[in-house]
Amino acid sequence: MQIRDVFYVSDGTAITCETVGHAVLGQFSFQAHERTFPFVESNHKLEELIKQIELSFSQRGTKPLVFFSIVLPEIREALSKAPAELYDVLGGFVGKMEQDLGLAAQPKLQRSRSVTKDSDRYFDRIAAVEYTLAHDDGVSLRDLEQADIILLGVSRSGKTPTSLYMAMQFGLRVVNYPFIAEDMSNMRLLPEFEIYRYKLFGLTIEPERLTEIRENRLAGSEYASHQQCLEELAVVEGLFRREAIPYINTSSLSVEEISTRILEQTGLKRRLV
Amino acid sequence: MQIRDVFYVSDGTAITCETVGHAVLGQFSFQAHERTFPFVESNHKLEELIKQIELSFSQRGTKPLVFFSIVLPEIREALSKAPAELYDVLGGFVGKMEQDLGLAAQPKLQRSRSVTKDSDRYFDRIAAVEYTLAHDDGVSLRDLEQADIILLGVSRSGKTPTSLYMAMQFGLRVVNYPFIAEDMSNMRLLPEFEIYRYKLFGLTIEPERLTEIRENRLAGSEYASHQQCLEELAVVEGLFRREAIPYINTSSLSVEEISTRILEQTGLKRRLV
Repeated sequence: MQIRDVFYVSDGTAITCETVGHAVLGQFSFQAHERTFPFVESNHKLEELIKQIELSFSQRGTKPLVFFSIVLPEIREALSKAPAELYDVLGGFVGKMEQDLGLAAQPKLQRSRSVTKDSDRYFDRIAAVEYTLAHDDGVSLRDLEQADIILLGVSRSGKTPTSLYMAMQFGLRVVNYPFIAEDMSNMRLLPEFEIYRYKLFGLTIEPERLTEIRENRLAGSEYASHQQCLEELAVVEGLFRREAIPYINTSSLSVEEISTRILEQTGLKRRLV
Repeated sequence: MQIRDVFYVSDGTAITCETVGHAVLGQFSFQAHERTFPFVESNHKLEELIKQIELSFSQRGTKPLVFFSIVLPEIREALSKAPAELYDVLGGFVGKMEQDLGLAAQPKLQRSRSVTKDSDRYFDRIAAVEYTLAHDDGVSLRDLEQADIILLGVSRSGKTPTSLYMAMQFGLRVVNYPFIAEDMSNMRLLPEFEIYRYKLFGLTIEPERLTEIRENRLAGSEYASHQQCLEELAVVEGLFRREAIPYINTSSLSVEEISTRILEQTGLKRRLV
């Protein structure tokens, strides 16, 4: 299998370059050695980058693949002369949009959700993360009127990472509440949730996958036993159906996929765009 | 100012499309009405999408701008016939990479850090989020040997969102520890941190910005007073310098920017790529 160096280069965080690069690399089978060069906005950093590109080329005998997003023209030009296969992550789209809109772009340094750009947005996001942290895992059931959504599910069904991702990425205030083994013999909806019924959303998971995840945490425990997982899931899915709470199965989904499917099914709007 | 509809369309989560689209839109001044169509992988969803594109075109009189990432050829083809300005977020790069590598792409549905694709990665990420949650805000100082980094700073300097972002995005295990007003008269490093000195990293912030953020939380309090903010920051920055703890000023940085700068300055490697 061929080996190639892959560099992510930006005058900002390079997170967009990484995101695009990972998606493209996911369609190929080769061994990628990845490195990220963020905040390339000075001559000093530019020289270091060019040196690394030249080193990669001379050592491997093949040009490194460089996913880049650079606004400053002099840095773009220097990069264009380096021995690299260049993937301009945004440039082509900016050019096309200028044509489509009949507007000139106003190039500025990449600022991802920058504080200075939009202070309200900054506060919204931080407030969403804090609200979600304060309402993780049933810790608090206060201020439910502020919740955008309330996630329900058994332990290890994916509630906490999903909640935090939705807060960080979409600016949503998420409550999550676990059903525990003791709830099982008399499963019912908490009275606190009654008037917020329309905010409830369930997560479920295949018993085999749940057993695997719990084993990874507490190997050999009753909690991780297949029988226990089967029973909890049967009871909780019964509740979801009885109470007409929408739910999804998270078994083969990433945190991004679970979060996006919840938005899609509930029609919930992103608060950060 | 002109108004345009902007659609993000994918057979996956469309998060990559949103990321690229936001970055491109950030270079233009127009009013964008954004909508996201994830998981477009069935005829039913395709028809709904095409209907919305046609509706946008007929209502606005201009074609909507569509950032898309679609693997299935029949859906790509249907989209290409719709009245839209099309931005193929990954397609051009996949084609270029086929040429650069002399390899054919193996198109598969977009799966962002999918569970099935790589179960170990899934567990690493969840474990990082859990470790970081358990070590938020000085709650626990156990298992510090597992920490990738230990963030220090006064209340509201950005520790918690940065920690969670680094865990979620990069798979890092982050401890964060706040200095509180009571620490100020006798500021010293906790003995627990002594042997992990090399993991310490400080966050600081301009007094004006800190005052603003604390006012937003507890208006009119001693805690939010400019004098208190000034004093705490002077003491804490003194400690950072005295103990040679590297630190950055977070005042005008987003959570993504703070996280990336920390990686850059410490040389810490991403655990998720």
